[in-house]
Amino acid sequence: MAYELYYWDGLQGRGEFVRLALEEAGAKYVDVARSSHGMSAMMAYLHGKQGYLAMPFAPPFLKDGDIVVSHVANILHYLGPKLNLVPKEEKSRIFIHGLQLTLTDFVAEAHDTHHPISTTDYYEDQKEEAKARTQAFLRHRVPKFLGYFNHVIQVNPAKNGHTVGDALSYADLSLFQIAEGLAYAFPRAMRNFDRDYPDVAKLRDLVRRRPNIEAYVNSKRRLAFNDSGIFRHYPELDQDPA
Amino acid sequence: MAYELYYWDGLQGRGEFVRLALEEAGAKYVDVARSSHGMSAMMAYLHGKQGYLAMPFAPPFLKDGDIVVSHVANILHYLGPKLNLVPKEEKSRIFIHGLQLTLTDFVAEAHDTHHPISTTDYYEDQKEEAKARTQAFLRHRVPKFLGYFNHVIQVNPAKNGHTVGDALSYADLSLFQIAEGLAYAFPRAMRNFDRDYPDVAKLRDLVRRRPNIEAYVNSKRRLAFNDSGIFRHYPELDQDPA
Repeated sequence: MAYELYYWDGLQGRGEFVRLALEEAGAKYVDVARSSHGMSAMMAYLHGKQGYLAMPFAPPFLKDGDIVVSHVANILHYLGPKLNLVPKEEKSRIFIHGLQLTLTDFVAEAHDTHHPISTTDYYEDQKEEAKARTQAFLRHRVPKFLGYFNHVIQVNPAKNGHTVGDALSYADLSLFQIAEGLAYAFPRAMRNFDRDYPDVAKLRDLVRRRPNIEAYVNSKRRLAFNDSGIFRHYPELDQDPA
Repeated sequence: MAYELYYWDGLQGRGEFVRLALEEAGAKYVDVARSSHGMSAMMAYLHGKQGYLAMPFAPPFLKDGDIVVSHVANILHYLGPKLNLVPKEEKSRIFIHGLQLTLTDFVAEAHDTHHPISTTDYYEDQKEEAKARTQAFLRHRVPKFLGYFNHVIQVNPAKNGHTVGDALSYADLSLFQIAEGLAYAFPRAMRNFDRDYPDVAKLRDLVRRRPNIEAYVNSKRRLAFNDSGIFRHYPELDQDPA
């Protein structure tokens, strides 16, 4: 049976981290909210009409048979073993789940660069605060997060350019997505990305060349980055490299 | 062997969600950074000196034998079955993990009320932005999150006042901590808490009366809420109920 992915149509957003895992693995899935009547099917869950244990706080969520899994990190932790995107040992799986939760925090911070005051208000109404928050994000948070992931790749004893273990994991795919998103949102600030985070850059390139990812990125299923998503390109927020 | 919890001394912070689970279960644990030489032991992990699979991005993290687990939700997902704080069925465990990840997001938003621009800068340097963010948080986000959890408790078929299943879970303990933290930070804005979120309020009281939690809260191990933590009481941020 095909997996059912539920996420807002019209943007990559947080759903994209799940899509990349499903696409890399060649898994069968339906992107429900992009199909006809899909939005009302999704809203039935969010409004509690599917009942107990099937009432996520927000998309994305994944339905697999009668199991409903919400939150990107929870979904990837669930899919990892099924899609062969994590090592076998518990110790590695727990570490990778921790990496994904660190990426989750980073994604929330990337989002808040354009919405530092309220997600309910327009970007235009918090533009000055967005400039200040973006400056702090680019100066302090990006180096801290990406420096960390660069180090994680370096200490992997497999020395294969991946974050953990002998092969590709879902955390590698998510890190690829974040590298691409940052380059879209902040082309000036990310000018020295490959020099500053060489191992993350190599991993990004390695993921980009994987046949299933390349086919997906070139397909209509992959929406372009746009200004509804997490990573938005507002030239006034971009700045010279730190 | 005792669990080792690593978290900053001097505040409840995110470590508190883990402490509540360990205390409720009567588990043996060492709060490492509060012991002598504990801080340097913690920093050795953060600086990567403990090597591969033992390099968390940030505290809290838990050490159990040779396994290192980072992030609150990952730690509680790991401890849940061992401490008997989740039901047996996978479906419930996945749902509870999703609830905990929703609480994680809420905690980050509660933190950002006093630091909307930069965690590197002082609160005093972002006080005006903090007022705006807090207003949006109290008006839109608190009702959305707490309304959701109130509903989750209501639809639990066990009708026992818990979020999921027949008994107490770690998500119940975390929801208690959030209710207490909100009351500390925003006593004015939370004046109608019990009326607006009656099921969450009842769950808070139920957790508060559990013997191990009561003993813990009255012990020296429980630090008081203070203005280094996630929930801070700045009277100028508090406001009349929404």
